[in-house]
Amino acid sequence: MKPCEEEEEEGRAAGGGGDPWKECAEVAVQLARRAGQIIRKALTEEKQVSTKTSAADLVTETDHFVENLIISVLKEKFPSHRFIAEESTAAGSKCVLTDSPTWIIDPVDGTCNFVHRFPTVAVSIGFAVNKELEFGVIYHCTEERLYTGRRGQGAFCNDKRLQVSKETDISKALILTEIGPKRDPATLKLFLGNIERLLKAQAHGVRVIGSSTLALCHLASGAADAYYQFGLHCWDLAAATVIIREAGGTVIDTSGGPLDLMSCRVIAAGTREMAMFIAQKIQTIHYQRDDEN
Amino acid sequence: MKPCEEEEEEGRAAGGGGDPWKECAEVAVQLARRAGQIIRKALTEEKQVSTKTSAADLVTETDHFVENLIISVLKEKFPSHRFIAEESTAAGSKCVLTDSPTWIIDPVDGTCNFVHRFPTVAVSIGFAVNKELEFGVIYHCTEERLYTGRRGQGAFCNDKRLQVSKETDISKALILTEIGPKRDPATLKLFLGNIERLLKAQAHGVRVIGSSTLALCHLASGAADAYYQFGLHCWDLAAATVIIREAGGTVIDTSGGPLDLMSCRVIAAGTREMAMFIAQKIQTIHYQRDDEN
Repeated sequence: MKPCEEEEEEGRAAGGGGDPWKECAEVAVQLARRAGQIIRKALTEEKQVSTKTSAADLVTETDHFVENLIISVLKEKFPSHRFIAEESTAAGSKCVLTDSPTWIIDPVDGTCNFVHRFPTVAVSIGFAVNKELEFGVIYHCTEERLYTGRRGQGAFCNDKRLQVSKETDISKALILTEIGPKRDPATLKLFLGNIERLLKAQAHGVRVIGSSTLALCHLASGAADAYYQFGLHCWDLAAATVIIREAGGTVIDTSGGPLDLMSCRVIAAGTREMAMFIAQKIQTIHYQRDDEN
Repeated sequence: MKPCEEEEEEGRAAGGGGDPWKECAEVAVQLARRAGQIIRKALTEEKQVSTKTSAADLVTETDHFVENLIISVLKEKFPSHRFIAEESTAAGSKCVLTDSPTWIIDPVDGTCNFVHRFPTVAVSIGFAVNKELEFGVIYHCTEERLYTGRRGQGAFCNDKRLQVSKETDISKALILTEIGPKRDPATLKLFLGNIERLLKAQAHGVRVIGSSTLALCHLASGAADAYYQFGLHCWDLAAATVIIREAGGTVIDTSGGPLDLMSCRVIAAGTREMAMFIAQKIQTIHYQRDDEN
């Protein structure tokens, strides 16, 4: 689909016809670093913690503060753009991806880690135009690692080019997953049953680090061979999906079909064979879609 | 028990009567940093991987190289000391703690992570005299964080004093565990059943990072509220136990009784209440003792 006139005009204004989203990507990097500094400082301070959809679905003042900061800067620079962001959605904003340039933001990914000062916390900023992901920026707040990916231009961690693992054999694979916010007995059975299936298939190991976006960055860097999750959101996935694809990886739906950014489920892997193996092994955990809230 | 004459003499030789193990602790720090550099470099290179007790129990040339390096330096400096180390034990050395000054060494903790270049890998060096742990040094190879603890002198990460969490309520707790080397169906059922019990008790989350020693360092730093594991070894536990105790934490047996370093099982927590809660919740997974091999 062709961009509409307004977007073309903005594209030119933003950085020339050849690279219409260059300025947007640069602003995203600056904002991710700035947000990361705020989060790093807040990690050392006392926190007011509230819950959202479940006792395990946490939110802090920092989530709100960082999200408001990022969106206010972007709205001033790019007034016609749209926004999908974790805390705005929790507060009732609709989560719908249109053809307009859209920023998809998780201000603090790994909020439970953040609350506990467990040093695995990230800022995630993705950007889509015509429903296609153009770039992603993820900043590991405590280790000061910046992951970036731009469509057609590769993926990087700081200045190092990222390359996924080429492993196709589950018996040589390290797998990443996350628990997800639902904790009812049936969901827990399915979650643990999926880990059991992969360990019985002789996966080297399963890791649960508490940040979907950083787990997906490990996948992009080749430090793991597959990632799957039910119950994550489009703001956990948007930036990471560009980074993984640009590092040579596969991001698909848990059914084995194409990724649906709003479906709250994903498999990412270094190879298509590995992704399809995981798709065949795991059982579905049902979550409401992001665009049905 | 009083140290034997030889040890007293060595204590004086090592650093004066007031602080007999000062030189040993300083050498441990130097060796952990040097080993960490070797491991960090090796992380970027191709590896020859072998298996030990199971398909998930891996070993590389780096494990052997680093262990030999550490022990050869220590043997030269402290010829009367004894050694318990992961790869020497795998090769048939007895794993018995006597009253002699004894170094307890894991050259590469998180070997599976190391093989996958998953950046959570540590060197662990503990030291016991009269069967009492005197100090521990753990070096996070990729993040260059040095954790140290000396009996009666506190615990530190680089220069920052460590302090455990004071949480007693499981419904506000972040829990760490590791899978362990046994992967038969009965063991997997127990391992996953224990996670299920803690999540049903409304723990905020469970994390599995692939390195027992670094998980225990997170516990010491207050970034998590409890850690438990079956199937770890005395070289995973020795250094971390000093660090956690000096950070104000509790390290006990999974039965709720005193820690038995050779029992291949542990609960560590910021508070005794939290440790005892975990002890009551989890079911035992049987592993052979380290000193029965």
